[in-house]
Amino acid sequence: MSELRVAVLGVGMMGADHVARLTSRIAGARVSVVNDYVAEKAEQLAASIPGCRAIADPLDAIADPDVDAVVLATPGPTHEKQLLACLEHGKPVMCEKPLTTDVATSLEVVKREAELGKRLIQVGFMRRFDHEYAQLKSLIVSGELGRPLVMHCAHRNPEVPPNFDSSMIVKDSLVHEVDVTRFLFDEEITSVQIVKPSANPAAPQGLQDPQIAIFSTATGKHVDVEVFVTTGVAYEVRTEVVGERGSAMIGLDVGLIRKSAPGRWGGEITPSFKERFGAAYDVEIQRWVDAVKVGETTGDYTDGPGAWDGYAAAAVCAAGVQSLETGQAVQVEMVARESIKGA
Amino acid sequence: MSELRVAVLGVGMMGADHVARLTSRIAGARVSVVNDYVAEKAEQLAASIPGCRAIADPLDAIADPDVDAVVLATPGPTHEKQLLACLEHGKPVMCEKPLTTDVATSLEVVKREAELGKRLIQVGFMRRFDHEYAQLKSLIVSGELGRPLVMHCAHRNPEVPPNFDSSMIVKDSLVHEVDVTRFLFDEEITSVQIVKPSANPAAPQGLQDPQIAIFSTATGKHVDVEVFVTTGVAYEVRTEVVGERGSAMIGLDVGLIRKSAPGRWGGEITPSFKERFGAAYDVEIQRWVDAVKVGETTGDYTDGPGAWDGYAAAAVCAAGVQSLETGQAVQVEMVARESIKGA
Amino acid sequence: MSELRVAVLGVGMMGADHVARLTSRIAGARVSVVNDYVAEKAEQLAASIPGCRAIADPLDAIADPDVDAVVLATPGPTHEKQLLACLEHGKPVMCEKPLTTDVATSLEVVKREAELGKRLIQVGFMRRFDHEYAQLKSLIVSGELGRPLVMHCAHRNPEVPPNFDSSMIVKDSLVHEVDVTRFLFDEEITSVQIVKPSANPAAPQGLQDPQIAIFSTATGKHVDVEVFVTTGVAYEVRTEVVGERGSAMIGLDVGLIRKSAPGRWGGEITPSFKERFGAAYDVEIQRWVDAVKVGETTGDYTDGPGAWDGYAAAAVCAAGVQSLETGQAVQVEMVARESIKGA
Amino acid sequence: MSELRVAVLGVGMMGADHVARLTSRIAGARVSVVNDYVAEKAEQLAASIPGCRAIADPLDAIADPDVDAVVLATPGPTHEKQLLACLEHGKPVMCEKPLTTDVATSLEVVKREAELGKRLIQVGFMRRFDHEYAQLKSLIVSGELGRPLVMHCAHRNPEVPPNFDSSMIVKDSLVHEVDVTRFLFDEEITSVQIVKPSANPAAPQGLQDPQIAIFSTATGKHVDVEVFVTTGVAYEVRTEVVGERGSAMIGLDVGLIRKSAPGRWGGEITPSFKERFGAAYDVEIQRWVDAVKVGETTGDYTDGPGAWDGYAAAAVCAAGVQSLETGQAVQVEMVARESIKGA
Repeated sequence: MSELRVAVLGVGMMGADHVARLTSRIAGARVSVVNDYVAEKAEQLAASIPGCRAIADPLDAIADPDVDAVVLATPGPTHEKQLLACLEHGKPVMCEKPLTTDVATSLEVVKREAELGKRLIQVGFMRRFDHEYAQLKSLIVSGELGRPLVMHCAHRNPEVPPNFDSSMIVKDSLVHEVDVTRFLFDEEITSVQIVKPSANPAAPQGLQDPQIAIFSTATGKHVDVEVFVTTGVAYEVRTEVVGERGSAMIGLDVGLIRKSAPGRWGGEITPSFKERFGAAYDVEIQRWVDAVKVGETTGDYTDGPGAWDGYAAAAVCAAGVQSLETGQAVQVEMVARESIKGA
Repeated sequence: MSELRVAVLGVGMMGADHVARLTSRIAGARVSVVNDYVAEKAEQLAASIPGCRAIADPLDAIADPDVDAVVLATPGPTHEKQLLACLEHGKPVMCEKPLTTDVATSLEVVKREAELGKRLIQVGFMRRFDHEYAQLKSLIVSGELGRPLVMHCAHRNPEVPPNFDSSMIVKDSLVHEVDVTRFLFDEEITSVQIVKPSANPAAPQGLQDPQIAIFSTATGKHVDVEVFVTTGVAYEVRTEVVGERGSAMIGLDVGLIRKSAPGRWGGEITPSFKERFGAAYDVEIQRWVDAVKVGETTGDYTDGPGAWDGYAAAAVCAAGVQSLETGQAVQVEMVARESIKGA
Repeated sequence: MSELRVAVLGVGMMGADHVARLTSRIAGARVSVVNDYVAEKAEQLAASIPGCRAIADPLDAIADPDVDAVVLATPGPTHEKQLLACLEHGKPVMCEKPLTTDVATSLEVVKREAELGKRLIQVGFMRRFDHEYAQLKSLIVSGELGRPLVMHCAHRNPEVPPNFDSSMIVKDSLVHEVDVTRFLFDEEITSVQIVKPSANPAAPQGLQDPQIAIFSTATGKHVDVEVFVTTGVAYEVRTEVVGERGSAMIGLDVGLIRKSAPGRWGGEITPSFKERFGAAYDVEIQRWVDAVKVGETTGDYTDGPGAWDGYAAAAVCAAGVQSLETGQAVQVEMVARESIKGA
Repeated sequence: MSELRVAVLGVGMMGADHVARLTSRIAGARVSVVNDYVAEKAEQLAASIPGCRAIADPLDAIADPDVDAVVLATPGPTHEKQLLACLEHGKPVMCEKPLTTDVATSLEVVKREAELGKRLIQVGFMRRFDHEYAQLKSLIVSGELGRPLVMHCAHRNPEVPPNFDSSMIVKDSLVHEVDVTRFLFDEEITSVQIVKPSANPAAPQGLQDPQIAIFSTATGKHVDVEVFVTTGVAYEVRTEVVGERGSAMIGLDVGLIRKSAPGRWGGEITPSFKERFGAAYDVEIQRWVDAVKVGETTGDYTDGPGAWDGYAAAAVCAAGVQSLETGQAVQVEMVARESIKGA
């Protein structure tokens, strides 16, 4: 399979974001089909993407022969039926949370996939793919902190939509820390308690915010989570794992900070230019590829540093090499840019 | 043009990295031709990439009709001839630094491109595409710091190849700060002085390391750069801009830190989940696309969280919603995973 | 009263520390009497301090006419009787925690002092005098964070004495967060829950460590505290207050960090040299005073920078002023130190 | 000598600060004489300090038999004569910078002290007594960073008095980095260059600000210093030492940060409560001593936590110990404060 043909079902904020991602930033895939319960929205989107069609019925979209795999960004209540259709057609599906909206139907989906004997379903718990969470997981697995004993989390949003209710804080926000706990500790949560402090007056009427969740896990680990979705400040997601021999924290906007023997705190320095500037190289090349395509019409095939910048660097470095010998300040010799028409 | 066909010339460390990038992480492009002066290396690489050929002569590669654009990762002394060939064929080229190895030929390249009237050449100063440098540039442009007056840079490598000599510190390492200065200040460097402190005994015999470079710019800004390439510690690239009304620093491994009135220091908190987890979504989808392709042979179409993880999250959230009502700890009810064959 | 004459009762680790403090670092007081249930220890200490006597009976020490005020660093079970004696003699007393060892006797002490109508008793909750806690309190009072809603604390010790038991974690460690809560929030704690996670195997047999304490306050604020006294790492005391309009954290070894609108995190820069180097001036002068006294016997009346350092600074600055005019590097002219016998 | 009797000469901002320090925070010394060229100022100050006289002539003050040692905070041009008088009378003197105002007279003072054979003079380079500089010096001496090669300094003031001129930046501001260099590297500075970037428009007319100073030392170490005294932001003093095997920085408002193998950056966690709260204990006891003295007139012998705070802590801890057994939330039982008249 040279290029994966993906159907994106549901093209609201989340789904449209996935369409843009698959079209502009992901290698080896393209969006072949889009679907939305607002048919016009899907049709307009399809028209803007080469080789993409809108299909009105989600089950038809799943079944379509031009679809290798499915991204599900539809409302939660429709997930069960759509997931079962994907399983039926043997099509891999990346399903935004929740899997389904209740425990019984989620279990049903698990059973049907298990019967098939193929792992076709992925759930959109994207924090597992975040660099800091991956670092934290590696650190735990390395054993440097000893066995984890306690975890403290904070999950803060500046604001929520007006119709947000108290149980949505659990199901839409806290659910991420549920998965983080299971991912980092590799065990199940066995008990949950929600503590309700005096509420933020800036929260919508009737919303219990903040909430404090306390998890206990199968082996007796303690997790506490502050979920506070009307802080007015910013988006803050912080996780600290406390182990037998040290602790580590992510989400302070300063990378992973560890505290471990012998009494030092700190982070890691990027080991080489690949880690430090790897993402910059990706951005550089993606933007160059995009600019070259645009260049066909504009005659300007780059929006990055050009030949003049290369010349100027050469002139400065030549002066530098000369100064390296003499130790004196050396004037940089360059022609005036205006003297070259078109440069 | 639906998919940009790129020739990568020179497939050493840097070029091979670009091949991998174009093949696995960049949307809308593919490597159609590779070339290296070690012909076997290019041939082996081409064989591993669908639709890619090795072409022995770099000028033939540039001219090939199956090539829309060129990435130049060949040794510097060959750049001039290859760049001129690209210009001749009207093909956009992304040229790793240096543009050419001396000032005169660099100027010649500038002139030839100017005559063409198309900006076809981009030089590989990738720091301009780094998130922190982009933030710093935006901050300068915003005027919050006032006009920049002074810049301090540190450029540290843990080690260098054995054949590294003193002038390469200028031409290969310091050259990045040359471009950073020109990029951030948007003016030319007019004078350069290299100060030679007592050398690090761990540096190779004869290598002047560290070096301190002092730049003066057209409007009298002062820039100092410590280049120290045998620190034994890590890769550290730090830049601090001091303006009339405040200063900002990047490269401390903690994001951009600004100091400005009224006497506070600090950084920005990620405003929303898009900025905080945008890269995680990209990784999630790229890995899913890759896994789905591999799944054809293994039957396992995901290496991420699966249906069981979705079920477990549902069960924990259900207990959470119940606790939200009672305030008491609620036991999580889940079937045993072993009870479902294949889950 | 020109110099306060203080009796220190109990000269174990804590009491001996107070004796040293009162003798060497506190202005306007001296230790006139020491007492310990190990009489020899008190006698030896008294012999080393000019004008200080050991008195064998703590109640005699309190009553002694050469005593203006009392520091109580005796074991907790003796506090009640000693505090009541201080009240009886109308002598101010600084009592290390706990006030007494149970609630009923503490209340009795409160009542007796209230009957006297003088506030003679201070309890040794020293965190109230720590710079960071004082900053945090000021920030809360300023209203910048809005009303506090939640507080997260961590209280970690690298190790504890072998006889430490689970209830001592509450009474000796957690008690500080009890006072911090009451101090910062200015209201009483109304309910306490201790959660017992799976214990650290490195903790002494039978010790429940870590413990998680959950406080609820009179107005419904939530406080959680991780007390973990066998971390093996270091002494960490961290406090984060989350308010309606922002949060602030101390104890990260980086000063007070606040997060408040508009989406920035950070700390304050020292406003002037007085705040930055005020403590350095104190140390400079205290060490100079101490050195001058020692100088009587050694002939060396300073252990700080001397006249030569002043001369060298003058020579360098003179060269600097010359360079300020010319912009060139100027050689510093100094005589050789060896040429001046005795310099 | 039980109590050092100090004459403070010059009671402007700096001298008055030393008087307050010696009177209220320094153990074992008192101010017996004050002098100022504005005689009334000295007399008013003397009247407020028990046992202190004003003496109109500085040389008389030095000679006075009630003076054991001298603090010199007079204008620089008077230092030479006053220092020589101190030497003549064999009295230790703590001299605010500069030693004298030119190189020749400084050398003369050095020679006279050397002839005496006693180290009587200390110069007020207070940074040597700052915790962070002391840490940095210890780190250098420990050898962890290898031999220092390079040092970068920044010295920033928000503003300067209107009469400040360019050479004062060298003699009053940069002089601190002169001493820091000599203190940290333990060798002399051999050459100085002042670079003059384009000036800050907010600086007073004619003031060259910022200035960049470049020092070279006897063994070829390189030091650069940005002195910028009209930043408008705050007081920032930063020093980074780069050695053969790592680097360390102070002055970022986050303590000493080191970068050393194996590729980690970070600081130290306070090892025990003594380091973390040692200063808090000093403040607690000094304030208690001061409050007790005031209490004689007010009847309130403490401004710290009192008996009620001790009772409240006991009540909360009792509930905590009970919860430790049951794991359940326990209500705290306390009497109402209002029920105890006077509590």
